[in-house]
Amino acid sequence: MEMPVPDPAVLACRPQLVARLRAVLPEAAVIDAPSETLAYECDAFTAYRCAPLCVVLPGSSEEVSACLKICHELGVPVVPRGAGTSLAGGALPTADCVVLGVARMTRVLEVDLANRCIRVETGITNLAVSAAVADAGFFYAPDPSSQLACAIAGNVAMNSGGAHCLKYGVTTNNLLGVTLVLMDGEVVQIGGPVPEAPGLDLLGVICGSEGQLGVVTEAWLRILPRPEGARPVLIGYAGSEVAGACVRDIIEAGVLPVAIEFMDGPCIRATDAFSGAGYPDCEALLIIEVEGSPAEIDEQLEIITAIARRHDPVELRESRSEAESARIWLGRKSAFGAMGQINDYICLDGTIPVSALPEVLGGIARLAAEAGLEVANVFHAGDGNMHPLILFDANAPGELARAEALGAEILLLCVAAGGCLTGEHGVGVEKRDLMDRQFAGVDLEAQMQVKDVFDPGWLLNPAKVFPLGLSAGRRAGAGGSAPIAPGRDSPAIFGER
Amino acid sequence: MEMPVPDPAVLACRPQLVARLRAVLPEAAVIDAPSETLAYECDAFTAYRCAPLCVVLPGSSEEVSACLKICHELGVPVVPRGAGTSLAGGALPTADCVVLGVARMTRVLEVDLANRCIRVETGITNLAVSAAVADAGFFYAPDPSSQLACAIAGNVAMNSGGAHCLKYGVTTNNLLGVTLVLMDGEVVQIGGPVPEAPGLDLLGVICGSEGQLGVVTEAWLRILPRPEGARPVLIGYAGSEVAGACVRDIIEAGVLPVAIEFMDGPCIRATDAFSGAGYPDCEALLIIEVEGSPAEIDEQLEIITAIARRHDPVELRESRSEAESARIWLGRKSAFGAMGQINDYICLDGTIPVSALPEVLGGIARLAAEAGLEVANVFHAGDGNMHPLILFDANAPGELARAEALGAEILLLCVAAGGCLTGEHGVGVEKRDLMDRQFAGVDLEAQMQVKDVFDPGWLLNPAKVFPLGLSAGRRAGAGGSAPIAPGRDSPAIFGER
Repeated sequence: MEMPVPDPAVLACRPQLVARLRAVLPEAAVIDAPSETLAYECDAFTAYRCAPLCVVLPGSSEEVSACLKICHELGVPVVPRGAGTSLAGGALPTADCVVLGVARMTRVLEVDLANRCIRVETGITNLAVSAAVADAGFFYAPDPSSQLACAIAGNVAMNSGGAHCLKYGVTTNNLLGVTLVLMDGEVVQIGGPVPEAPGLDLLGVICGSEGQLGVVTEAWLRILPRPEGARPVLIGYAGSEVAGACVRDIIEAGVLPVAIEFMDGPCIRATDAFSGAGYPDCEALLIIEVEGSPAEIDEQLEIITAIARRHDPVELRESRSEAESARIWLGRKSAFGAMGQINDYICLDGTIPVSALPEVLGGIARLAAEAGLEVANVFHAGDGNMHPLILFDANAPGELARAEALGAEILLLCVAAGGCLTGEHGVGVEKRDLMDRQFAGVDLEAQMQVKDVFDPGWLLNPAKVFPLGLSAGRRAGAGGSAPIAPGRDSPAIFGER
Repeated sequence: MEMPVPDPAVLACRPQLVARLRAVLPEAAVIDAPSETLAYECDAFTAYRCAPLCVVLPGSSEEVSACLKICHELGVPVVPRGAGTSLAGGALPTADCVVLGVARMTRVLEVDLANRCIRVETGITNLAVSAAVADAGFFYAPDPSSQLACAIAGNVAMNSGGAHCLKYGVTTNNLLGVTLVLMDGEVVQIGGPVPEAPGLDLLGVICGSEGQLGVVTEAWLRILPRPEGARPVLIGYAGSEVAGACVRDIIEAGVLPVAIEFMDGPCIRATDAFSGAGYPDCEALLIIEVEGSPAEIDEQLEIITAIARRHDPVELRESRSEAESARIWLGRKSAFGAMGQINDYICLDGTIPVSALPEVLGGIARLAAEAGLEVANVFHAGDGNMHPLILFDANAPGELARAEALGAEILLLCVAAGGCLTGEHGVGVEKRDLMDRQFAGVDLEAQMQVKDVFDPGWLLNPAKVFPLGLSAGRRAGAGGSAPIAPGRDSPAIFGER
């Protein structure tokens, strides 16, 4: 992984930088001892790590502003960090940066049921948002697998999704407003409890911008009434093709389940052995969940099972109780852990049109065979968000590199099918160098010009998202490029958190 | 209404301009005879009108590109036009512009049920999109009142809403991708059937950009399964305050009706006299519609009516049949026509937090009394999208100006309550000069810089959205400002189309 060579002048200003940051923050909020910055050297994309100049943990928008002003004056890059659960290296430091974490900013600032929204500091975890409105019967819809740990800051930065996005949309569909601190320290408000302000939609461009435009310190989030109940059905098929056709028919029939999860043979067997979920031994498994009132659930499941039966399932098990529902979900929820126990793996995150599912699954199998590696598939099939897991042996020399090369090929296959490089993990450093395969030069140039507007000095999370060659002229002191240090655990095990 | 003084050099190039446009378009697609450009001198914001240099009606993205290239080379401003139903003057020409209409581009290009989307040329009407997928059991959710006439091009430009947006969101929540022709003629693709591409969200910034960034020639729209059925309940109250409280309690209870419509006393009486809908004579009327399966409808109506009864309604009428449903909606659907029969009026379009409803209604009544004018209210209460109608006598000298001044005060009241200048009609010229009351200078500057990226010469729909004083330095040849000619029917009757 190549990263720009740090500007020696920036590295040299470290003592002055730390002293000035200490003057505006509480003692414990500036971390510069190597033993303590260690924890911030990487995120959940653990293959690579790098020690930053220092880490700051401001406690308010005003403190964030004070830190950014100092870095802006000194020309020091800033890498914003939520909970550090990025699977794409979105929070990976560079050697010349200050890591700015929002971990101390976790307050619920306002619960506004009448306007169906909640205002929070962005260091709060995703699950804590739902918890704050659970008693009133509401919840926050986007539900990344890491929801117990991940921060709203990262959800906004990466436009995070989750299993329930098929019905409720991703972060951008549930974000109403933000407090954003610009690189020069200015604090601005974009959006708010009333959606859809006039003029250009700057809120939309902030969501998913991966910390390139500013630091999001507060967020207005839409909350939704919790459905009365939910119930899954488990359907096993002899092959991926027929399972893909079943998913397509369900969507075409106009049913909108809250989740359609898919596992292929290798994943089913590993998962079942690990969890004892009692899954059938077959080549494709669908878990389809619907929600609503009991009558509504019955009605939807009737339509779904009728379609499923037309495709000759090897097993069809409709949950009749809470316990059965839990058992159906048990294997799926432990799938990543199960795979990690028996293999090192890279977890990809591409999206495709749902209609291309059978064709892309076939393509992945072909590419894997050519590369001599095994790929297990477990993913959100309803909205075409694939998570192929490339299995490899971390102790076999060169195998990580082969797995990474296969990963790039699979993602480009998704793009060729009309899809995207990433569904919910973001670009970060991981997919940065594939961006020019997704976008034409003119598209990337337009995106970079929008970054120019918000961050003219390119100090915010530089060397991410945009290919280094394209952004070189814009990044401060960008002379050459140097590889970033591989992580101490490298070759690493990547996981869905 | 002030507009920039046209550049004489641009006016002088008209013969050359028309000749060059004729060379790239079919004969009938270039309109320059004054008797024919007349129809394009204004949109549904009929108070003002202005003859453009000429009108072009290209038939494809390639023809749009050819026209824009020519205008770009000659430095001629371009005003894009959908069906001309804008209530905010979004398609109002300037004297030095070419009006570029998409009225000839009305094809459905692709229906893709498996991916729940449809690709259309943007001259197609909103209702024709739903019609194209109705047999398959799907529909396109955003439903502006003008849906029979308005084009998807205008829906995308204004981020249009409608009565059903409470449940389904506005255009930006239902738009998956666009083909966009930039001012220099370049044709780009943004988004597509797979949502949420990586990098900066340029699709979001296009939606609602009011023709400032490019001409949207094709759109990928999300379609949804049509609900099994829908049924309204009509609830009358003695005052707006208690009706507002009822709306708030319903939202807080976690019920999500598909529409909550509100009419106040003046509107109820005018509407009932006009339509014979049999509405009760009271000061506030709610029409609340829910949808789903019969069981689901019953269940939701039960919760809603229980809450409504707690607030002592003077009438509560639950529809039991199609005929009763139609009768309940009859008055609401003819409300604008009814008001237009007895009064001239200006239709405003502000949004507020739902919780501020009673307070803002009180404020509007106070401001109206101070101005000596009557205001009738009919609006989408569920999502806080107000449509106050300011009644005035077009034949009384100075009354239009007083009504406009009251309109500005009411919109600023919405902003002060935490709301926006516009919910679904857009800024256009109508609210242009209030934008600096909604946004701080830094916000508008950031928005204008984003326009700089897409349209560096500020040739696309200039003199809209941004206050003239702020954009003066950017617009080509912007020396002074001249008032635009008032429409021939002026003082005009504004209507919700």
